[in-house]
Amino acid sequence: MVGTTTVDVLIIGAGPAGLALANWFRNSEIRVLLVDKKPGPTPRGQAEGLKSTTNEILDSFGIGQQIAAESWRLEEIAIWGPREDGRSGIVREQVIQDKVEELGTVRETMLQQSRVEHHMLQNLLFHSNISIRYSTCPVTVEIDASCSHQGNGYPVKTGLTREKQCDNNSNGSPTTNGVNGHNLVDEHIHAKYIVGCDGAHSWLRKQLGVVLEGDLTDSVFGVVDFVPKTNFPDIRRVCYVRSATGTILIVPRSNKEVRFYIPVGSGSNSALPDPKDWTLDRILAAARHIISPYTLEAGAVSWWSAYRVGQRVGSHFSRYHERAFLVGDAVHTHSPKAGQGMNTSIQDAYNLGWKLRLLLQWRLSTRSADGAAPAPEEALLRTYEGERRPVAQDLIAFDRGYLRLFAAPSAEFDSEMLRAMKFTTGLSIRYPKSCVVQLPRGVDDLGPSLLKADLVPGKRLQDFQVVYQADGIAVRIQKRMQATGAFRVIIFAGDIAGANQFARVQSLGKFLADRGSGLGRLTTPSEGDDSAAWKKVPVEVLVVHCADRASVELLAMHEVYRPWSSDQGYDYWRVFADAESVFEGHGRVYERLDLDRQKGCCAVIRPDGYVGAVVDVGDFQGLRGYFEGVGMLEVGGA
Amino acid sequence: MVGTTTVDVLIIGAGPAGLALANWFRNSEIRVLLVDKKPGPTPRGQAEGLKSTTNEILDSFGIGQQIAAESWRLEEIAIWGPREDGRSGIVREQVIQDKVEELGTVRETMLQQSRVEHHMLQNLLFHSNISIRYSTCPVTVEIDASCSHQGNGYPVKTGLTREKQCDNNSNGSPTTNGVNGHNLVDEHIHAKYIVGCDGAHSWLRKQLGVVLEGDLTDSVFGVVDFVPKTNFPDIRRVCYVRSATGTILIVPRSNKEVRFYIPVGSGSNSALPDPKDWTLDRILAAARHIISPYTLEAGAVSWWSAYRVGQRVGSHFSRYHERAFLVGDAVHTHSPKAGQGMNTSIQDAYNLGWKLRLLLQWRLSTRSADGAAPAPEEALLRTYEGERRPVAQDLIAFDRGYLRLFAAPSAEFDSEMLRAMKFTTGLSIRYPKSCVVQLPRGVDDLGPSLLKADLVPGKRLQDFQVVYQADGIAVRIQKRMQATGAFRVIIFAGDIAGANQFARVQSLGKFLADRGSGLGRLTTPSEGDDSAAWKKVPVEVLVVHCADRASVELLAMHEVYRPWSSDQGYDYWRVFADAESVFEGHGRVYERLDLDRQKGCCAVIRPDGYVGAVVDVGDFQGLRGYFEGVGMLEVGGA
Repeated sequence: MVGTTTVDVLIIGAGPAGLALANWFRNSEIRVLLVDKKPGPTPRGQAEGLKSTTNEILDSFGIGQQIAAESWRLEEIAIWGPREDGRSGIVREQVIQDKVEELGTVRETMLQQSRVEHHMLQNLLFHSNISIRYSTCPVTVEIDASCSHQGNGYPVKTGLTREKQCDNNSNGSPTTNGVNGHNLVDEHIHAKYIVGCDGAHSWLRKQLGVVLEGDLTDSVFGVVDFVPKTNFPDIRRVCYVRSATGTILIVPRSNKEVRFYIPVGSGSNSALPDPKDWTLDRILAAARHIISPYTLEAGAVSWWSAYRVGQRVGSHFSRYHERAFLVGDAVHTHSPKAGQGMNTSIQDAYNLGWKLRLLLQWRLSTRSADGAAPAPEEALLRTYEGERRPVAQDLIAFDRGYLRLFAAPSAEFDSEMLRAMKFTTGLSIRYPKSCVVQLPRGVDDLGPSLLKADLVPGKRLQDFQVVYQADGIAVRIQKRMQATGAFRVIIFAGDIAGANQFARVQSLGKFLADRGSGLGRLTTPSEGDDSAAWKKVPVEVLVVHCADRASVELLAMHEVYRPWSSDQGYDYWRVFADAESVFEGHGRVYERLDLDRQKGCCAVIRPDGYVGAVVDVGDFQGLRGYFEGVGMLEVGGA
Repeated sequence: MVGTTTVDVLIIGAGPAGLALANWFRNSEIRVLLVDKKPGPTPRGQAEGLKSTTNEILDSFGIGQQIAAESWRLEEIAIWGPREDGRSGIVREQVIQDKVEELGTVRETMLQQSRVEHHMLQNLLFHSNISIRYSTCPVTVEIDASCSHQGNGYPVKTGLTREKQCDNNSNGSPTTNGVNGHNLVDEHIHAKYIVGCDGAHSWLRKQLGVVLEGDLTDSVFGVVDFVPKTNFPDIRRVCYVRSATGTILIVPRSNKEVRFYIPVGSGSNSALPDPKDWTLDRILAAARHIISPYTLEAGAVSWWSAYRVGQRVGSHFSRYHERAFLVGDAVHTHSPKAGQGMNTSIQDAYNLGWKLRLLLQWRLSTRSADGAAPAPEEALLRTYEGERRPVAQDLIAFDRGYLRLFAAPSAEFDSEMLRAMKFTTGLSIRYPKSCVVQLPRGVDDLGPSLLKADLVPGKRLQDFQVVYQADGIAVRIQKRMQATGAFRVIIFAGDIAGANQFARVQSLGKFLADRGSGLGRLTTPSEGDDSAAWKKVPVEVLVVHCADRASVELLAMHEVYRPWSSDQGYDYWRVFADAESVFEGHGRVYERLDLDRQKGCCAVIRPDGYVGAVVDVGDFQGLRGYFEGVGMLEVGGA
């Protein structure tokens, strides 16, 4: 007798992507099952670098501080090249700061994958709606694509097998043959959605008939994590060392360790070296040769590997009318040099998670804004592929250019390097127009001037520092916006010390609180007014003003900006000033985002921190239109 | 049959003082036993505020980040007073920043005592030399004061009792009668030292015949931790609210809670209200009356109490030729208003701990610098009372003035308040001359100009930010100096881009490494050169230069500044630049400490972060003289 379990979301693979996805479902009633063929948490993983956007994501899961405490920061990059006098050896060409001004914070930190996974896993432990089973893998899957997203059906039927039948050494499940698979099934899972976070050799990808596309130029890398004993002077900086015999990338880690990346060959299949031929000694000898005449001996070696990477992107990121999804390495692969593997996996998952959460806990309106098909649920979920596939494609194009940049630096090296650093932070990503990225009415595409602006639909809200009106404590806005599934309406209220602007912001407050034609149904609880009821509200209203902080009295502002709960009194932490903090300086948000200090503006921020829409403070219908477009409010209101 | 256990240090009481003391013995072979009559860790404690020095101490135990993550920061103080127009009610008089410029960091944070204890306790768990027994208390103690510190004797014999015989409700042990006490003994502990961290009703204090001295003016306070529901606008600031009917202190905490301190009476014994008469409702009513016309209702109340405090200091802090010590509340009591109880307890323990550790793991020379008695061990341990008793006395004088300040603010309120804030940070503490606080030869006391300087023997080394020469990462110096028991010689090397100054610093390096007449026996391992051997060295050499960082090559400096270990290569983290960091700005150490950028200077920093001596970079014998004075080197050398 084979049992059946019913869940909302079945996640295949508990690596960085699967764990990040599961973290979206904390503090909800959505039932989630993660399965992984591994016998337990990863003791060790290849990935290591965390980019700023990823750190913001981990912060939004509430685990940023623990991770920062363990991470090693990277702040300087040294570029070494061959001596120009024709003699053998290398010279330091320049040292640049590993910094992107727009970020205003650390761009990159190092922490090994297993620790990142550890914190994401720990973060799930006290959420009984989320379960994890190790030594478990899927062997069959059937999807009823005709099932409507509006209904309460569970169209994804997956057969799981346990324990010994999950062969860790195979690159997938014991069999991909449906008939044999059925014989192995220990349990059936009925789910609304299935997500493959099962890595480069993804079993689900094969079941879905998704193929990886790309050229056949693969690379073989040697990677070593070790305590170096060397007189190379820049060993505690990120180093690109280009010598006559090759290029290595050196990245400092904690505990006196460094990581060396040593490319040992690339080309088409037949010309490639076999990773199995590369021993630790051979890899270290190659590194030693490149940094000669400096010495290099290895103290403790904590991990090493030689492996092969290609550059490919999946033909689809979702299938079966958005019932099945592929995330991370399961759907794109690239070289490790730009440190984008774990980051992109987590960011893919972060993009998908809130969309699933939204429609599993909020019934979308059947009357979509333009009355056309597809159903709003499908439109919402399609944006996952629409947003993330171009990122994967860009990443591969970037990866090639990045490798070229270091092979042969040009006169524009500095600006190219800065562009590369910006790219890997994700600052240059802009998601296309969709139901969750809305342009002003009548505008189909943004002109070049708007594209360069810093508060633009489809771009990530740049993290910035503000201070709480109530207590003067500094906070970074992305950290303030925890991953609860809520949208935020941020009112950049301008100088509300002026009576006119204050009146405009108060009128907007009235509209935001209005449960009829305004946004009240989204911003205030439908039942009760205790703090628990407030936590279920799908839109949180925040205010960032630039008036003299001493001239503003929080309690004089409209109640929607400092709502009352019957058990905890006022919420004092929704209104911020763009002001000098006591200890952390001035965030200068209005300057950095180029905002009008008199008129201000109003931004809808999606649950994942991306800008959904930007409207004038007085454009009430523009604001309402956004949520009608997503399907969260009926078109026309009330 | 009653068993016997032998330890080096027996600590009575596992509260903030006892746990802080025990933390000094991590990573050593010193055997420590803590006993506490409580059945387990404190679920809740009265103390709450952490001052900057305490946070530095917790950082030096390696638990600063966890504690900071849980703490609530305090940044603004609002002063409210009665309306001046004669009508009833209160008005906001001013808002001041809770900041002391010299600190350069947060002055004060809030975290409840039980969480502070939790982190200190967790930090002991994997150190098998440190044990804790709850439900255990001492009932007898005998000390053989004739025993020499030079020998290997265990002159402190303590009888412990367990379980039910420890009555939690009594203010001490079941009996202080020696005969009855002996009947209850379950186990004898033979120890070299005993330390009473057993609180205001200290059992050990009574055994030692130490009396608390002070006047008989006590106060009764009501304290409530709760979620306020109020329209008082400054509820998220520290507030001193002075009305016609009384004064309250409001301190914000995490989780939307605040703490109210409400004095409900003071005076001599007979005039004092009985704390038992003060119910929660009565205390809240008193508070409500003071902040009227603002409303005040209580949401969840997590803790409240009414209690009585006097201002007293023990006649002695140590007895029996420095075999027995009293720490924290056991030896001084004062009002909770300045938030100094837990802080002073931890700081007392921090002062004592390194001294015990030093002489338990380093045989002091019998030839003291001036050839006179007492033995160097006794001289070292006497500095505990010599340093901490005046602090307790100052604290009580401060406490009285502080209460007056708020009762009737003067025209100098701002400067008085700043002075008060500096006092509570400990910035104004200066320990007197002793074997561990040495003035230049021939100088018996410092003139007023030197006393005002920022790098002075007896004062705490002001925390400052520098960047590592090797990787550019910013670090705060107090955090860099972990509580390992090591002294630090910090060479403020000046501008070593100049050849002359570089040569002076190299010569000093040679002296520091010289195992004969120099400091080599203290700065370099006596056996082996692996990283474990380096960890046992009692003096760590650090360099802070102010040259252009790019002009300095770390590996060109003397090896004592970047020593080699056979398993881990060079130590890259001993040389710092006073330079701009990539992300955290410029520490401006030379400016802040008013150091000569050409000549620099050389400071001995004690294991507890206080300055022991300051000498010229060329004054080799001045440097050696310090360690001869402590007894760590034979006078005259080699």
